[in-house]
Amino acid sequence: MPSQFDPPSGTRDFLAAEVELREHVFGRIGSVYSRYGFEPLQTPAFERLDVLLGKYGDEGEKLIFKILRRGEHEASGEADLALRYDLTVPLARVAAAYGSQLPTPYKRYAIGQVWRADRPGKDRYREFAQCDLDTLGSPSLLADAETLCAQYDALTEVGLPEFSFQLNSRRVLAGLLVAYGVPEDLGAGVLTSLDKLDKLAPADVIAELAGRGLAPEQASEIVTALTAPDSTDRLRTALAKTDEGTAGLDEVDTVLSFVAAQIPGDRIAFTPRMVRGLSYYTGPVWEILAAGVSGSIGGGGRYDGLIRQLGGPDVPATGAALGIERIVSLVSGSDSLTRSRIDVAVTVMREDLAVQSFELAARARAAGLRASVYLGSSGKLGRQLKWASDSGARWCAIYGDQELEQGTVTVRDMVSGEQTPVPLAEFGSYLADAAARGEA
Amino acid sequence: MPSQFDPPSGTRDFLAAEVELREHVFGRIGSVYSRYGFEPLQTPAFERLDVLLGKYGDEGEKLIFKILRRGEHEASGEADLALRYDLTVPLARVAAAYGSQLPTPYKRYAIGQVWRADRPGKDRYREFAQCDLDTLGSPSLLADAETLCAQYDALTEVGLPEFSFQLNSRRVLAGLLVAYGVPEDLGAGVLTSLDKLDKLAPADVIAELAGRGLAPEQASEIVTALTAPDSTDRLRTALAKTDEGTAGLDEVDTVLSFVAAQIPGDRIAFTPRMVRGLSYYTGPVWEILAAGVSGSIGGGGRYDGLIRQLGGPDVPATGAALGIERIVSLVSGSDSLTRSRIDVAVTVMREDLAVQSFELAARARAAGLRASVYLGSSGKLGRQLKWASDSGARWCAIYGDQELEQGTVTVRDMVSGEQTPVPLAEFGSYLADAAARGEA
Repeated sequence: MPSQFDPPSGTRDFLAAEVELREHVFGRIGSVYSRYGFEPLQTPAFERLDVLLGKYGDEGEKLIFKILRRGEHEASGEADLALRYDLTVPLARVAAAYGSQLPTPYKRYAIGQVWRADRPGKDRYREFAQCDLDTLGSPSLLADAETLCAQYDALTEVGLPEFSFQLNSRRVLAGLLVAYGVPEDLGAGVLTSLDKLDKLAPADVIAELAGRGLAPEQASEIVTALTAPDSTDRLRTALAKTDEGTAGLDEVDTVLSFVAAQIPGDRIAFTPRMVRGLSYYTGPVWEILAAGVSGSIGGGGRYDGLIRQLGGPDVPATGAALGIERIVSLVSGSDSLTRSRIDVAVTVMREDLAVQSFELAARARAAGLRASVYLGSSGKLGRQLKWASDSGARWCAIYGDQELEQGTVTVRDMVSGEQTPVPLAEFGSYLADAAARGEA
Repeated sequence: MPSQFDPPSGTRDFLAAEVELREHVFGRIGSVYSRYGFEPLQTPAFERLDVLLGKYGDEGEKLIFKILRRGEHEASGEADLALRYDLTVPLARVAAAYGSQLPTPYKRYAIGQVWRADRPGKDRYREFAQCDLDTLGSPSLLADAETLCAQYDALTEVGLPEFSFQLNSRRVLAGLLVAYGVPEDLGAGVLTSLDKLDKLAPADVIAELAGRGLAPEQASEIVTALTAPDSTDRLRTALAKTDEGTAGLDEVDTVLSFVAAQIPGDRIAFTPRMVRGLSYYTGPVWEILAAGVSGSIGGGGRYDGLIRQLGGPDVPATGAALGIERIVSLVSGSDSLTRSRIDVAVTVMREDLAVQSFELAARARAAGLRASVYLGSSGKLGRQLKWASDSGARWCAIYGDQELEQGTVTVRDMVSGEQTPVPLAEFGSYLADAAARGEA
């Protein structure tokens, strides 16, 4: 049951370890993308309402968070702004706004929060991060291939163990409908049903196709072709007999040839039955699957007409997204990412020794370590050592009467419990050496 | 005049160079703060409306962006959520929500956007970043001193050339009122007027004080004491005669002694007339001034009662903020931060050579460089070299018929124009060597 101090329904507070994990993942992905010459873009959290309306269909539009007009208009209950729903509509707006100031092609990535008033649930949030990579202004399949390679490198760099690409082309799908004699008016519905072959049994998909008006033998023939063990070969033969199918195969094979040197052959496969639901794709499409995860963790494709539809200029475009919330939870098991808060904890045994303790912490920082003095009120060593241990400190620097007299500081190894008296002047270098020896 | 493609009034789109500058500054500050053992916290962009209401006074409350209820309640025009107005109220909520799960003391930093429906103007935005550093749960002046040192290091690290701290204590101000016989009921108003001594002439402040009901001789005496060349000495003498003043001086001197080893003496000064407007401060207060900038670029202080007032637990607290938008604009002149988009541009002279070009770009990336192939449709070298130059590439790798025949790639130095044929197998190491020689 939510308490009055919980964050709003569907949102999360990220404490230290989660912030660090997320920033690590986002940072790695961003650095791979810039290695490919993509540049970052950040747009405001909200847009004018009219920029967002009419872009996401009825279902999507219901999920837009609207912001009340301020000032004298507040009482009207009218909205004039809305939180962004994705990163694509803002991209279209930016492309329209900055035109020739942007490089051609404009290759950009964006990692940022979006907001949707969806019913919150497991892995479904009202505030979540998206990670987009898009190239506006290039009709070349090299741009599609570059996008695939950048995604492959990014996922490899964040340490995702097993993932693979399913590659298809909208033109292959169009050819498929022709090759199997599907009436044109049933085309879109048939593809929607075929897209379910990952989740439903073939018989159920056949039934659904029949329900859409496809002759039962035809439904059965097309589903069998898509699910047979030698499906890809069978379909290649069938597709090669149609113009659109031939063009689609050519598109897929060209992309595969471009990426061959960078994406291992067992990590990307031509997958003729993969539809990638969104209707705006016009060329190559792909999805990314990860071991042990249902559904895709990312995908992309060419969408030559969309930017104009969204209010931007009429440019060819290709792009891809990573399901970054899911990816963060997949890599969160990795131990190397859980960090302690500090390396060196410095005691404050008496108020009149506080200046010296403060200086010791500064010297530890100057040696490149994270350090903090004890800020509590207890003068007891036991309490202060407990704080040092709770903070995850590797060392505790103890400075009391005895150390004052001897001109030393006692460095306690918090793992072994061993204590070493170190002359004050050597404290920084002692820690730097210990850290360099890998004790940190 | 704003066009339909501009971002909403008071907000900004950040293109590549600005994103990189901002992330550079934010990243440096965050890394200094974590060196001091502060941990990051991220809270949602919006809070439940009742969490924010009643926290910012009437003027502040008018600036809160409210979000309409969704679903069936939308038509009511009622709001149930609101964009966060600062990072402090969310901190109080987090302290209440997570209690003992948080370390004691809880030292956290937060860098994030906040939203205020203010009238947009020069340097005044409706969406802007704040950067907060706070310690909850320690009554020790060491915590105040640590905050000052962390801010000093952070500003030094981002390369801000000249800045200094004005340090005071709320108890010094209380002692001042006693020492100069200001009636208790006039105290708050008198301090508000004295806070203007930075902007107004002494005579104007005296007039304002008289208007508040202070006797003219008294007003004149106190303003003279605060503005005289030997002001600090004069005031020390006066303050030492009152209990509150003595305690305040002690507080200031203790903090100064703690930071002495880290903040040079000419960068921090006891400034008795600095009030730091916000009424919730209870102990040391400070502001940060930068050369050539009017007003402060940051500040902080101890605010022992505030977290409870804001709905959090009853804990002592101290903290500070940096005016990070201003700081970003102060360091934006630095050339070292303007980066090109790529290091290596690779031509695609003919479609059937695209696979090889694509591979060359991959090898450049493997050598640690940012690289991209030409994604346009022109087969002309001149056009492709223009693209390479526009992208800020240091080298252009040319691969055409001649290179195909000779098994080489021509590497053009985009600065000197010099072209070197490099055997294909040596391309990566050739670039790595050139980059290591500092040509990049």
